[in-house]
Amino acid sequence: MPDNNLQHKIVDVPTSAPNCVALTLEEVQALSYRVLTHHGLSAAQAQAIARIITAGERDECHSHGLYRLLSCTRTLQNGGVVRDATPVVSDRAPGVVAVDAQFGFSQLAFEVGSKLLIEKVRKTGIAALAINNCYHFSALWPEVEALVEHGVAALALTPSHSWVAPAGGHRPVFGTNPIAFGWPRAGALPYVFDFATSAVARGEIELYRRSGRALPEGWGVDAEGNPSSDASTVLDQGAMLTFGGYKGSALATMIELLAGPLIGDMTSVESRIVDAGAGAAPCHGELVLAFDPQFFSQGDFREDRLRAEKLFAGITDQGARLPSQRRFSARSRSLANGCVQIPEALLKDVQQLLR
Amino acid sequence: MPDNNLQHKIVDVPTSAPNCVALTLEEVQALSYRVLTHHGLSAAQAQAIARIITAGERDECHSHGLYRLLSCTRTLQNGGVVRDATPVVSDRAPGVVAVDAQFGFSQLAFEVGSKLLIEKVRKTGIAALAINNCYHFSALWPEVEALVEHGVAALALTPSHSWVAPAGGHRPVFGTNPIAFGWPRAGALPYVFDFATSAVARGEIELYRRSGRALPEGWGVDAEGNPSSDASTVLDQGAMLTFGGYKGSALATMIELLAGPLIGDMTSVESRIVDAGAGAAPCHGELVLAFDPQFFSQGDFREDRLRAEKLFAGITDQGARLPSQRRFSARSRSLANGCVQIPEALLKDVQQLLR
Repeated sequence: MPDNNLQHKIVDVPTSAPNCVALTLEEVQALSYRVLTHHGLSAAQAQAIARIITAGERDECHSHGLYRLLSCTRTLQNGGVVRDATPVVSDRAPGVVAVDAQFGFSQLAFEVGSKLLIEKVRKTGIAALAINNCYHFSALWPEVEALVEHGVAALALTPSHSWVAPAGGHRPVFGTNPIAFGWPRAGALPYVFDFATSAVARGEIELYRRSGRALPEGWGVDAEGNPSSDASTVLDQGAMLTFGGYKGSALATMIELLAGPLIGDMTSVESRIVDAGAGAAPCHGELVLAFDPQFFSQGDFREDRLRAEKLFAGITDQGARLPSQRRFSARSRSLANGCVQIPEALLKDVQQLLR
Repeated sequence: MPDNNLQHKIVDVPTSAPNCVALTLEEVQALSYRVLTHHGLSAAQAQAIARIITAGERDECHSHGLYRLLSCTRTLQNGGVVRDATPVVSDRAPGVVAVDAQFGFSQLAFEVGSKLLIEKVRKTGIAALAINNCYHFSALWPEVEALVEHGVAALALTPSHSWVAPAGGHRPVFGTNPIAFGWPRAGALPYVFDFATSAVARGEIELYRRSGRALPEGWGVDAEGNPSSDASTVLDQGAMLTFGGYKGSALATMIELLAGPLIGDMTSVESRIVDAGAGAAPCHGELVLAFDPQFFSQGDFREDRLRAEKLFAGITDQGARLPSQRRFSARSRSLANGCVQIPEALLKDVQQLLR
């Protein structure tokens, strides 16, 4: 599996990508696996993460691709991650499965728990997967997409580190609290969204800080709760804001409650306290719901599906976009090309992780 | 129960409310019941609606109080409401109950279905109630609050009439698609939010039209998708917008899917077509979820509850508000006063409905 001699691929670049190296998806996965096991992760943990990183590169979500190995290994160095954690599954109720990730990463815990989630939802119609005690650093769309492949609709929620103030406030209480949703479509890629309930990602504000640019309105406040366009003020003294004002703030609260106290796991405030400034990936819980349409239909399941397709057509026919379209286009491209383009500098940084 | 001789209450007004009449909650309920049965609704349908209208007045949500009798009776005159509809409950799966409202109003269907929903969630940990074929005109918070009284967390979603364009679009596809959530709190009123995923309520834009004021940015677009500050343009030619840009638009899509095609019921576009300009309350479905915390906890249920309370304190201690606080203050006031203040003009309009 390991193959560190990747430079030869430069000559194979099928599209013009200056200063990039073409890697096959297998090579991305093998490199990721090698880096992760080199840093002491068990084979099972490393494989689950390598798959997600490969999906990120395939979909040209570069911040969720190989780049994540940098923060993932930093979390391994600084955080309390259990490198060979074996997730423990509990069958809590006919509709509830819980997985104790045992302070490993989320990916393996999800893989292990989602099997029982699907079994349950096939009987109960709606079921929930609670993942506890796990380190999170990846997007939620790979999880809802994995569930949607079974023909179910899926919703995933998780807190993070408290960086975001409630509407009308000035002190961080919420994480960037993402919500992801997936809907299966016959003969088409699924309808999928995955967004942070913060106005923007924290990394976006970091980029503004580095370039010294003023933040757009609505991204953050200073320590007194006044709107601030200064990235350092927002990141270090004040707080980020949610999207959508008091409505986004309410939604962020719901995510804290359902993926925190409901499942007996940490809020974003607690998770940040536990991190104690180490800058590791947040450790907390996650809630995933699955809905099996066959139990909800009034009878004509094909008609129901057609209704959903008409809704999508009503959006795209007027030139509006469905979420994930950019990602799905990238996916087709990657699969057609048989490879993805990795910046040489990033590849060098990742290979440094093997030293 | 009926008591139309309400004018005597004027002398009892405990607070200064000019041109208002004080009614007890019992009087509000009796008047509502009388109006609804006068318009041919069955006793069971009328009682369920009268309770919700009374709750609206109690909480000083005037637009969901007696005022709603005006639109409700209009719906009865113009729409296809079955006035003596008896909801039919189906036990679809261990976690799914469906109620066919038989084209009556939503309130009775919810009351009937929520009993089985609570029974189910006590066994399965998570359960869903799908309400089909019903006319909706009330807020969702009374429903999530009714469920929260059983110690469960609750989420409710429903489409409406297509008035709202997707992000990047210009033609209406979504309804105002409300989402409501409730969380039980020990020794306190619950955490509850209930908001439309449109930027504002349609009624708010109507008020701008009447007063000839320019709409704030972000409320609507013209027929070409350009931002418009003209209420008539937005209401008649263009479209309303969702809150929160593309994220709100994604959320509105999820609500369409889960409370429409998933449960085999109409989307907001279909519901508006069925209405055919009658201006009746929208006819469609609703999805309600319940979560029983005892099945999700990692073991220390009191600690979980405390976590949630710390989250709320983290919001309120910095001077930010929890949703529904205004409503809960009004509730305390109404219950302490033993009565609510009804504008004389409104009372006259409502009494006209008894002719």
